[in-house]
Amino acid sequence: MPELSQRAHAMPSSPIRKLAPYATAARALGKTVIPLNIGQPDVLTPPAFWQAIRETAMPTLEYSHSAGTAVLCAAATAEYRRQGILIEERDLLVTVGGSEATLFAFLACFNPGDEVIVVEPFYANYLGFATEADVTIVPITSTIETDFALPSVSDFDAKLTDRTKGILLCNPSNPTGGVYSPESLLAIAALAKSRDLFLIVDEVYRDFYYGQESLLSVLQIEGLEQNAIMIDSVSKKLSLCGARVGFIVSRNHAVMDAALRFGQARLCAPTLDQTAVARAIQETPPSYYAEVRAEYMARRDLLVSLLKEVPGVLCPRIDGAFYAVVRLPVDDADAFAQWLLTDFDLDGDTVMLAPASGFYATPGLGKDEVRIAYVLERPRLQRAVECLAAALAVYLGRTVKELAFA
Amino acid sequence: MPELSQRAHAMPSSPIRKLAPYATAARALGKTVIPLNIGQPDVLTPPAFWQAIRETAMPTLEYSHSAGTAVLCAAATAEYRRQGILIEERDLLVTVGGSEATLFAFLACFNPGDEVIVVEPFYANYLGFATEADVTIVPITSTIETDFALPSVSDFDAKLTDRTKGILLCNPSNPTGGVYSPESLLAIAALAKSRDLFLIVDEVYRDFYYGQESLLSVLQIEGLEQNAIMIDSVSKKLSLCGARVGFIVSRNHAVMDAALRFGQARLCAPTLDQTAVARAIQETPPSYYAEVRAEYMARRDLLVSLLKEVPGVLCPRIDGAFYAVVRLPVDDADAFAQWLLTDFDLDGDTVMLAPASGFYATPGLGKDEVRIAYVLERPRLQRAVECLAAALAVYLGRTVKELAFA
Repeated sequence: MPELSQRAHAMPSSPIRKLAPYATAARALGKTVIPLNIGQPDVLTPPAFWQAIRETAMPTLEYSHSAGTAVLCAAATAEYRRQGILIEERDLLVTVGGSEATLFAFLACFNPGDEVIVVEPFYANYLGFATEADVTIVPITSTIETDFALPSVSDFDAKLTDRTKGILLCNPSNPTGGVYSPESLLAIAALAKSRDLFLIVDEVYRDFYYGQESLLSVLQIEGLEQNAIMIDSVSKKLSLCGARVGFIVSRNHAVMDAALRFGQARLCAPTLDQTAVARAIQETPPSYYAEVRAEYMARRDLLVSLLKEVPGVLCPRIDGAFYAVVRLPVDDADAFAQWLLTDFDLDGDTVMLAPASGFYATPGLGKDEVRIAYVLERPRLQRAVECLAAALAVYLGRTVKELAFA
Repeated sequence: MPELSQRAHAMPSSPIRKLAPYATAARALGKTVIPLNIGQPDVLTPPAFWQAIRETAMPTLEYSHSAGTAVLCAAATAEYRRQGILIEERDLLVTVGGSEATLFAFLACFNPGDEVIVVEPFYANYLGFATEADVTIVPITSTIETDFALPSVSDFDAKLTDRTKGILLCNPSNPTGGVYSPESLLAIAALAKSRDLFLIVDEVYRDFYYGQESLLSVLQIEGLEQNAIMIDSVSKKLSLCGARVGFIVSRNHAVMDAALRFGQARLCAPTLDQTAVARAIQETPPSYYAEVRAEYMARRDLLVSLLKEVPGVLCPRIDGAFYAVVRLPVDDADAFAQWLLTDFDLDGDTVMLAPASGFYATPGLGKDEVRIAYVLERPRLQRAVECLAAALAVYLGRTVKELAFA
């Protein structure tokens, strides 16, 4: 029997989905499992998307251009420009979700064995793309005590080696919900420029920002044109996770030329979805975005206020996205998350959490943290935190009892 | 300015699309360019697909399972079983087209620097996926004189090194239109098994087979369960190129487990397309496939009979797919294909060809060959060959004249 590749063995499985079998078993027992683990928004997809889908009149569903349909490229460019990100159409390529945009960026920028510095906790799938591209992720730790702020230039400096070729950030951050201050971003941008590094910023949560000032995009940093690459997606901003439409955006022509050749190999992104996404971008009114943002702000406020009342739980400041990395009064959040599904319910309800250890590359970190995705309506969110609070009380009591009898 | 990766530099651009700027210029001059270069079928997408699209009633377009929607996995498995390919659902994973299936197979089976033997001329994008996965393609040449038959076991044997980890075939073949005899396939399968190699077969043209006997799938070879991987796609068989739905299929559980983890990193294939593809698989009647096959057989017969009348042109036997690699009486088919667009027309019409050199990995091969995709209605196909014949007469006459005055 032929042996699999090393990268096949090294490829991580999803830390978000690894508790799924326990959730299935819990549901089979009649429990209601409230999912706080997955960033699948419950927000309605804009009507313009569905209208475009219903009005489709193609006799044959053909390949589209490898760079994306002309209409979508134009619509996306116009939308960026409206947001003050002054790109041209040639700076953009449509990808199969932000996932493919990230993979293309890795393939274009890094040789096998090259190092990319990533702030942990980070979106777990970065590790998957790094494994596929044979790139080494060098983690730099942000902490809950500082609300997961961007580490300082000297922290980054200490991680640089002669194999360092780039820095990858997610802003607003999945999983922490943190938003990097313009000052801290500009400092890292200056470092990237002076050291000739690519600065790749995953901005798929850019529309989910609950602060007062506007968010600084990596593409708005002057002088960084040749270093800056933005990853984007319509999955979250238009509640179109299943459309698989994203963008890689850069003013570095060599990067975009390489991205096009990676794109030609896989022919195109889904044609029908692109067509309807273009309509959704063009026709969705500002009120849609405003309502979605207001709803998430209300959910954020509710979550933070509820968690504050749970003894032993630490919830940091959250300014963006729809996630929080929260500290729990447990030694092993993986075991606790599993126990929630296998051994606990509150009048038939329990919650599913994503243990945060899967979002750290440094072994041992995040053992007492979980990621919470607040993509549920407020009453359900409230019930989820009730369950969590009740579960912690039982779990901690159980531990004390077990210890007493041990 | 940071330097791109070596793979970015090495990544080939599409040989099928590289003449596109000349075609655009020709059209701008008012010429009609008949495309023989791209395998985009003109066949109608089955009505069941469009009906499913119109009937979609999802409030939110959500992620689907990383392995594919349950309904599509079940429908595809049932369809394979109907065709005598007796797989189970767990042997199959839905991919973003056959493209992603090929990339996943490469990533799962091969380490950087490993060698995979591929029969040339081959589908040009294999070279792209190999570049992305840092895998070395070792070409073994099939020739027009043998109708591009599968080379012998001893030919393969001569290419084996201690880095050889697999063999990749395309059957029926893009670009040659050749179909491998069961005997020749079984011989290569025995070699793969005895040498512990993966045998990856791209069977996306399996439904386009114009012979009498049925086609042998790599998954139907007994004893090869741990070595065999099939690449498949609905792009061609259901005229759904733009849906980006394909499959990787293998009974090797380790391969499928790795494929699932690669799949989890990119979350899912497009949800809406998967939903409608499932309906198309379930509801498209056998008559659809039979009509499409009959139409392509008629086109094949027409193309072969027309090309036989063009002096100096050699068209081999074609048993499958909808391509032919044809020898032309020119030294440099790249130059000729460009000249067709820039300097020639027959009453306003010209043709766009794919020079075959892009389908060979061995430098210098295929210089006098082109790939023709016969995905046009018969009158247009007839006109295209008329243009080609007239062009050759002018081109060869021109050469003689130029040489005479040189």
